[in-house]
Amino acid sequence: MAASLKIKLITVGKTKEKHWRLAEDEYVNRIRRYANFSQVVVKEASFGSLKNAKLVRKAEGAEISRKVTSQEFLIALDLSGRQMPSEIFAEFFHQKMLAGGNHITFLIGGPLGLTKDLLKQANLRLALSEMTLPHELAKVVLLEQIYRAFTIINREKYHK
Amino acid sequence: MAASLKIKLITVGKTKEKHWRLAEDEYVNRIRRYANFSQVVVKEASFGSLKNAKLVRKAEGAEISRKVTSQEFLIALDLSGRQMPSEIFAEFFHQKMLAGGNHITFLIGGPLGLTKDLLKQANLRLALSEMTLPHELAKVVLLEQIYRAFTIINREKYHK
Repeated sequence: MAASLKIKLITVGKTKEKHWRLAEDEYVNRIRRYANFSQVVVKEASFGSLKNAKLVRKAEGAEISRKVTSQEFLIALDLSGRQMPSEIFAEFFHQKMLAGGNHITFLIGGPLGLTKDLLKQANLRLALSEMTLPHELAKVVLLEQIYRAFTIINREKYHK
Repeated sequence: MAASLKIKLITVGKTKEKHWRLAEDEYVNRIRRYANFSQVVVKEASFGSLKNAKLVRKAEGAEISRKVTSQEFLIALDLSGRQMPSEIFAEFFHQKMLAGGNHITFLIGGPLGLTKDLLKQANLRLALSEMTLPHELAKVVLLEQIYRAFTIINREKYHK
């Protein structure tokens, strides 16, 4: 069942710091025991001043839209989205799998966030915390929660 | 003003994985630009079976209590504690500093959590998320938020 699930993670900009890359790799390897996991990295738009923030989000948004098809259940990370305890997130995930929703795409914006259009397009806006996290850290937390969800669904011991 | 602030972080068990250690070091170095930051690592109590969880928490709790004085404002990380947006956390932090509360101690339990007594003793129980995070990741998120708080208080650009 789990083997048929396709999870895609779309992020903006490559992860530069080694510690984040190592943490990501650790969880990606664990997730791949349960699902077909792929990553898409959209190029970070360059910006000279913060006045261009809207333009940056728009350019990155257009790039992101090209990577998402209508068959995918799109979950966008958003500070003002809905929070869920890990068990509810796992149950939500499980229900999607059982319902045959086998394409789940997670989306994390760049430092300047996502466009309103993309947030509207998302099937779910998920908040990890009330706190603002740097997008690299949000990525690690999300990957950890996806891995944790599979251990909850499969009633497995959480690997420390 | 900020220079006189003493921040102590008490955790249970050494951080084993390299990626977490590197991420911690990064934020600890940044925090030290603003405050006197120290870490106390309490030894993880050994346990053979989950039936001993209560005993483990008790043993670790006794050890933790020895490291906290009544002068310290104790903030315990707790999944059922209070969440705060980063700006509110920074403001809270700032108010503590202005009020001359120059000893702030953060406490993160081990994999089995904290005793009820310690949670009661805490001046604040802080939740980072509705999601359950491994304690190593909780530590990184907390350090990042402490660093972020200082950048907010000092109206500085967040260093990416």
